[in-house]
Amino acid sequence: MISVLAGGVGAARLLQGLVQVVNPKDVIVIANTADDVILHGLHVSPDIDTLTYTLAGVNNKETGWGREDETWLAMDSLKDLGRETWFRLGDRDLATHMYRTGRIAEGAGLAEVTAEISASFGLEMCFLPMTEDSVQTKVTLADGSEVGFQEYFVKLAHNVPISKIRLEGIGRSQPGPGVLDAIDQADVLVIAPSNPFASIDPILAIPGIESTVRSHRQKTVAISPIVGGTAIKGPAHRMFKELGHESSVVGVAHHYRNLASTLVIDKIDAELANAVEDEGLRCVVTETVMRDTKIAAALAKTALETVL
Amino acid sequence: MISVLAGGVGAARLLQGLVQVVNPKDVIVIANTADDVILHGLHVSPDIDTLTYTLAGVNNKETGWGREDETWLAMDSLKDLGRETWFRLGDRDLATHMYRTGRIAEGAGLAEVTAEISASFGLEMCFLPMTEDSVQTKVTLADGSEVGFQEYFVKLAHNVPISKIRLEGIGRSQPGPGVLDAIDQADVLVIAPSNPFASIDPILAIPGIESTVRSHRQKTVAISPIVGGTAIKGPAHRMFKELGHESSVVGVAHHYRNLASTLVIDKIDAELANAVEDEGLRCVVTETVMRDTKIAAALAKTALETVL
Repeated sequence: MISVLAGGVGAARLLQGLVQVVNPKDVIVIANTADDVILHGLHVSPDIDTLTYTLAGVNNKETGWGREDETWLAMDSLKDLGRETWFRLGDRDLATHMYRTGRIAEGAGLAEVTAEISASFGLEMCFLPMTEDSVQTKVTLADGSEVGFQEYFVKLAHNVPISKIRLEGIGRSQPGPGVLDAIDQADVLVIAPSNPFASIDPILAIPGIESTVRSHRQKTVAISPIVGGTAIKGPAHRMFKELGHESSVVGVAHHYRNLASTLVIDKIDAELANAVEDEGLRCVVTETVMRDTKIAAALAKTALETVL
Repeated sequence: MISVLAGGVGAARLLQGLVQVVNPKDVIVIANTADDVILHGLHVSPDIDTLTYTLAGVNNKETGWGREDETWLAMDSLKDLGRETWFRLGDRDLATHMYRTGRIAEGAGLAEVTAEISASFGLEMCFLPMTEDSVQTKVTLADGSEVGFQEYFVKLAHNVPISKIRLEGIGRSQPGPGVLDAIDQADVLVIAPSNPFASIDPILAIPGIESTVRSHRQKTVAISPIVGGTAIKGPAHRMFKELGHESSVVGVAHHYRNLASTLVIDKIDAELANAVEDEGLRCVVTETVMRDTKIAAALAKTALETVL
């Protein structure tokens, strides 16, 4: 059984590869929900949705988020009503949030609802929200103001310097159903090449999760989201720098040194392998830029083989 | 100033006529919200939406509800997710409910939000929800089971016998902002040709409203929703019979005898004018089937002239 700590796009690509080399039924995905947001009364889970849509093959390849074959009548009409619509919810995509919101209103937990949605999309792997509690990533901008993660990520296009990340509600949050077991019982625990600060750290920060991961350091392998000093997508490289770290695979190694026994880095960073190992992790060098599913499958296989 | 107690379609047609003969700025519509329903987390106000869309000229003429130029991707996707979709929310229409839900979540009252939406649609008349509290029409079916109004009206297509109507939450509800003043200060109070049981009675049942209307009986004129023993649209005629009343203009007169001093009936019912007057109301006979705006305008003018 393989468990994966996951954010959105980078994790989704890795999982597309992973299901080529292991049975999807043997995969448990522990997904970040600290980006979740209530918009217009609807519960939106951006990372879970990206994972679900991508694995189901219905993700929007043009936008990089949302569903394919999408239309925007609701958003256009909402804009006519004078509402902010920088977080674009397509008409098809809306159904997912309406389903989630309706089921939660009926008393279902986020884990149950997430399982229902992924099953409805025909997926066999198991998606677990990191928590069913409300945890909200808040970002302090360089000017001192604090904004919600989606405002930083989407509205501001993560194109502004930040000085701090805070996880509102984290102290009283609990791991979601099945999460600790999934970490405990996995043969391999993979930290996906997701944003360490915005996607992986929120998972780890839920009371009980980081200590459980640490106790399984030997079976844990991380894949660097930083390649050649930058992120394939998103602001991870900026965050490393702006939060006082080194934006390189060495910075990633330092960040994960107590959690993972192995870090997989890209060939472009091969010369930094020794520096990674100086952080106390085994370093494996391979192709990590997942241009297609074949590369993703090879990367997943390489990651698993560091442990199995 | 003209105030109108209103349900959905019938009232909307009358108002289309009314704004031909008076300045829309002089019209206040007190709208039934006991049909309001939370669907998939979204606050839907069917009567207010029907009034708004119809007066704005963007109502869907094919369906008789919702917006024109509509698409259904969200509903189709929600159905794929296994959700009940008998209450169809079009993609364009969804924006209205998202706006309402979002604003209420921000702390705005339903009256404020209703005013914002109608202003955004360019309407000059004032729409007041009857209450900002949750009042829910519940219908007892002949088999003894109780269902929400929309389940009766939409899912069951009001094609089943009923034995009782109950207004959940009515005891602790209060008139919405401006409602009592609108009744008090109107030069004419019109009871629109809406369903007396499903649309008008819920308004009257809010503590304080019926007594206020009664104290202004002389300036109050009702337009019969029953024409030739039947309703132009909807189940009003069935409800009269099933709830133990006479489905005729005489039944309407009996129902409104303490509230209105005048009942306007259709020419087809002219022979019942004396029986209406026997109930203690003045009876005015005219064309009430609003096939076009011209007829609606003439009807509105006739109704106003009974008082002014």
